[in-house]
Amino acid sequence: MQTYLDCVPCFVKQALDATRLASAEDDVAERVLRRVLEAAAHMRMDFPPPFMGRTIHRIIRDETGSADPYAALKQKSTQTALRLAGAVERRIENASDPFEAAVRYAIAGNVMDYALASNWDVDKIDNCFDEALSKPIDFDAVRSLEESVSTAARILYIGDNAGETVFDRILIQRFPAGTVTYGVKGSPIINDATREDAEDAGIDRVAHIIDNGNDAPGTILDLCSALFRDLFGEVDVVIAKGQANLETLNRCNREVFFLAQVKCPVIGRDLNAQVGDWIVNLYRPEVSITASEVSLAVEVER
Amino acid sequence: MQTYLDCVPCFVKQALDATRLASAEDDVAERVLRRVLEAAAHMRMDFPPPFMGRTIHRIIRDETGSADPYAALKQKSTQTALRLAGAVERRIENASDPFEAAVRYAIAGNVMDYALASNWDVDKIDNCFDEALSKPIDFDAVRSLEESVSTAARILYIGDNAGETVFDRILIQRFPAGTVTYGVKGSPIINDATREDAEDAGIDRVAHIIDNGNDAPGTILDLCSALFRDLFGEVDVVIAKGQANLETLNRCNREVFFLAQVKCPVIGRDLNAQVGDWIVNLYRPEVSITASEVSLAVEVER
Repeated sequence: MQTYLDCVPCFVKQALDATRLASAEDDVAERVLRRVLEAAAHMRMDFPPPFMGRTIHRIIRDETGSADPYAALKQKSTQTALRLAGAVERRIENASDPFEAAVRYAIAGNVMDYALASNWDVDKIDNCFDEALSKPIDFDAVRSLEESVSTAARILYIGDNAGETVFDRILIQRFPAGTVTYGVKGSPIINDATREDAEDAGIDRVAHIIDNGNDAPGTILDLCSALFRDLFGEVDVVIAKGQANLETLNRCNREVFFLAQVKCPVIGRDLNAQVGDWIVNLYRPEVSITASEVSLAVEVER
Repeated sequence: MQTYLDCVPCFVKQALDATRLASAEDDVAERVLRRVLEAAAHMRMDFPPPFMGRTIHRIIRDETGSADPYAALKQKSTQTALRLAGAVERRIENASDPFEAAVRYAIAGNVMDYALASNWDVDKIDNCFDEALSKPIDFDAVRSLEESVSTAARILYIGDNAGETVFDRILIQRFPAGTVTYGVKGSPIINDATREDAEDAGIDRVAHIIDNGNDAPGTILDLCSALFRDLFGEVDVVIAKGQANLETLNRCNREVFFLAQVKCPVIGRDLNAQVGDWIVNLYRPEVSITASEVSLAVEVER
């Protein structure tokens, strides 16, 4: 999707919050803010919001001198998720529909997101898992996902945040063995999972891991490695987690199952959903992205 | 006071909201946003926030082609205030302490502010007037104001928003006749009162009106006319309404009585107050503004 005017104040707010997570120094935050404002003044509104997200977090890493400001938060997320995992697996086993329950907990895990809120809130996490089995979701879409997965030879499961990865693993355990490749970021961006975070969650026990070769939130195919792009085009089923994947892949030219929590009113409007809704959505392309659009993105943003 | 980092996302949000009030066109809003972002990237953090407010609203007026985007909202505010005036005057007459009650309604009137919220909210206005007599305020400061006013030969009462002016008039009626000059903006800025708005509220029946010669929110003395600055320095008592006057005068070199509602957490922190608090505050200068600071401001901002 495009970037909306309402995204702009939110970018500036996120930049400030994220900088404060990485550094307590006001002069560092001021330098970040000025560079973000300058970049935002000239940003492309026809590109998805994660383009600007990438720019913001590159500036933050540069000015704070920290290659991975979210490293500690990611480890804490994974540890918290691993502690919850046993109870979640028992609830899934005891559910009337274990596949659906596993999908629900994979979406519940998407609460571990520090792009929009930079503070660790254990109550928010607990509440989200408490309501996992009762939250309204699209049953037909879940059935459609189950059927697609059961007959697939190759599945690409694109992860989102560290910690959430643990619940992705629990869902992937219900897919046919040996079918899944799990996509992670090429290098640190916000608290998104990298290869190391996925391994910490035990993803390597249930899937092959591929990194997408870049540091943008979501999946900007044009910035991904050729290997990742080929895989994305060739597999039988693609599953993509979280809002940033929705923002970057909901105009792509193949079918994608999206699993996400809606956290932003602009994306909600694009999806005809409300903030707080849980999304199981089978996206089907209407029009393909043209070659010229892709090359334009390469030219401006690489 | 200086501009804080937390002011910056708020500037961008306000710019977008205010533009939408003035124009329904997304391309206009995009041009405004880009210019505001560019200006904010190079703003002076050591200047009070209203400097940037002035820049933002100059950009909005320029891009929307509207010399006074808030004209209709200001008239609506004045009409609403005039309808409420009779009931308010009766409640003041019947109060155990009519002077204090008049101060309370003058502060209640400060709810008619469209700098931070661009939407007309009649419930918010009604609620504010309903609680006017029960809201906690500083009684000692009210007594101090009453004493100062009762013995003053010359009073400068610096107004804030259109509509609020009506309740300023009701308070001024309790001051010694012929003592008050009422300060307004030199030209339209947000919904701040200009000479015309003050006259619509009947201020000219109880006070001489002086405009400050500029279009910045609050009172940036350095941008005011020599006549206004001289008056500010010479009068026995200065009363200043609203947050923007607090932001711009709380480092000035004379005593000022501030009457305001606290609407922003950053200003609240500066005042040791909470959002929603009502302020009756006698400011006394600790250090004077130096001549070099003043000339710097002239050089950069005129």
